[in-house]
Amino acid sequence: MKYLTTNNIIIKKAAKSKINQVDFDDLAFGEVFTDHIFICDYKNGRWQKPKIRPFGQISISPAARVLHYGQAVFEGMKAYKDDDGKVWLFRPRENYKRINASATRLAIPEFPETYFFEGIETVLRLDKAWIQPGIGNSLYIRPFVFATEASLVASKSNKYRFIILFSPAQSYYQGEVRVKIADHYSRSANGGVGYAKAAGNYAGQFYPTMLANQEGFQQVIWTDANQHKYIEEAGTMNIFVRINNTLLTPPVNDRILDGITRKSIITLAEDMGIDVKIGPIEVAELVKAAKNGSLKEMFGSGTAAVINPIAGFSYKEETFELPKQENAYANLLKDRIIAIQYNKAKDPFGWSYLVK
Amino acid sequence: MKYLTTNNIIIKKAAKSKINQVDFDDLAFGEVFTDHIFICDYKNGRWQKPKIRPFGQISISPAARVLHYGQAVFEGMKAYKDDDGKVWLFRPRENYKRINASATRLAIPEFPETYFFEGIETVLRLDKAWIQPGIGNSLYIRPFVFATEASLVASKSNKYRFIILFSPAQSYYQGEVRVKIADHYSRSANGGVGYAKAAGNYAGQFYPTMLANQEGFQQVIWTDANQHKYIEEAGTMNIFVRINNTLLTPPVNDRILDGITRKSIITLAEDMGIDVKIGPIEVAELVKAAKNGSLKEMFGSGTAAVINPIAGFSYKEETFELPKQENAYANLLKDRIIAIQYNKAKDPFGWSYLVK
Repeated sequence: MKYLTTNNIIIKKAAKSKINQVDFDDLAFGEVFTDHIFICDYKNGRWQKPKIRPFGQISISPAARVLHYGQAVFEGMKAYKDDDGKVWLFRPRENYKRINASATRLAIPEFPETYFFEGIETVLRLDKAWIQPGIGNSLYIRPFVFATEASLVASKSNKYRFIILFSPAQSYYQGEVRVKIADHYSRSANGGVGYAKAAGNYAGQFYPTMLANQEGFQQVIWTDANQHKYIEEAGTMNIFVRINNTLLTPPVNDRILDGITRKSIITLAEDMGIDVKIGPIEVAELVKAAKNGSLKEMFGSGTAAVINPIAGFSYKEETFELPKQENAYANLLKDRIIAIQYNKAKDPFGWSYLVK
Repeated sequence: MKYLTTNNIIIKKAAKSKINQVDFDDLAFGEVFTDHIFICDYKNGRWQKPKIRPFGQISISPAARVLHYGQAVFEGMKAYKDDDGKVWLFRPRENYKRINASATRLAIPEFPETYFFEGIETVLRLDKAWIQPGIGNSLYIRPFVFATEASLVASKSNKYRFIILFSPAQSYYQGEVRVKIADHYSRSANGGVGYAKAAGNYAGQFYPTMLANQEGFQQVIWTDANQHKYIEEAGTMNIFVRINNTLLTPPVNDRILDGITRKSIITLAEDMGIDVKIGPIEVAELVKAAKNGSLKEMFGSGTAAVINPIAGFSYKEETFELPKQENAYANLLKDRIIAIQYNKAKDPFGWSYLVK
């Protein structure tokens, strides 16, 4: 009997696991997937009964609106295995709320909470062996939804597909990250979709990022499109700056993603007694601090890397190197957040979510 | 023998045409497709040998980057059949140049000119019966390219698929179009991708357009994201405004699509002796002209509708109706452009392209 049914989900299990083909010590991020995926279709005004089925190609119309009009949003989250083999998620309700906030801005119907959690947890149970224990190892979870209706009319779709992919991930040392602060290209507009995890927000960054790469920078820090005067975010990371012993980060708005790692860092830093200031950061202020030595650290925050220290930055013609820092806030904060994620420290914030 | 080969293209013909199932007097735009599509894949650093095959579903990885990061661009163009049964394109080299300009901004490799033209023309010969003669009838052509590489890394893809779809279209009376001038949401940023036909530009408009629809407006006219002070474009149409006997349209820039119908209208209007002014249009100027009666016409221009007259507009709390116009520029210009497209009038501009 191949088909099983939980309360809400029709399950078709993979005939044979592919796990033995995977080298968990040499994983390319986001290219290896577990045995199962979760799929749920929207039509006739409602989400249909979800399915779990073996990972594999999907069939869509070449006229599917996502291919033409980019109507798609996604989330990124991780599952961690502790020393007892228990599986944990980190603030998954925040991801759930955010994918629906993104969906709303893109005129995509909200996805039911029950399906979201039951989908993730059921696959995590089926593919539990794919979650390797040990700090740094995790299972990256990618919920996403896209417009499937076959129509070239440039308006919102009446059909969607919601999929969740699961991809084993390793912690990796990225090398030193140097960033270019944008002074010409930009990522998002006031009144636009910058705060949403909308597919099109990412594609727009690839070309300017490629140019920055050619100049020797790994990433771009975006600034306001109007004057390129204020730091916004790095496209896949929110940005933190330490000036003397104050940790600064820009406020979120309709151009900046409300990062879950970002707000966890703010809470942890305050809990650790660090002076945190949420407010606009002028590029000029950053350059001045770099010049007078008060700029101690810069780092990015996001689900993939948790915290990614920045070794240097450029703005227009000038390039700056950051000092090596003893007891860097980046390291202190990363250690604390990771300890909670892997259930190695008490979680006083109610962030940990045990998968049963 | 099912497989044929032209110089560059591997052709698999449809076993049986579906043309008899189509009611050409009742076509929904962009939902019916001809028997064949053109497909060309990019991998290993180059475009592979293209194929023409029967229209049908395509298979992609659920991790294909287009579904996550919106790396996709498209074009829209039409084929017209004249009274002698000859098939014409309208300025197709402009579409070819523009899809590559869009692709470049989205970090997608350029597509070869030979493949583009040979692809379109070969399918037009195969599916010639799908092009109905008569003013208003046409075959809508949709070239598009999207990222197919299966990777969740948020960077440009190493694999792409270029497809051309062909969809029979009718001229239709859309009813009177009233537009809302944006005062909160926006479409594009300075230094962004607004000038490209990038997939994500369209999805971002669906929600604000839905809100405008609920207020009784069919479309939104976008303004600059910074101050909402200047008219930009309507998302799928460029905008023209006639004040007294001067025809105004905003200049193109990195936020505004360089419309082919737009520039054809400018050329034709100048040729007809109309005073054309390309320059910023302030919303305040438009409101003032509506109030003092000097605003005679507004219309949108684009491939789908050619010219779409606008009957009224709103800005913030105020709503304005435009006067009915004898010998409207919209009609005069539409008649001239259509006469060239259907080979009913001489083309002094070299715009017509005969499909052989």
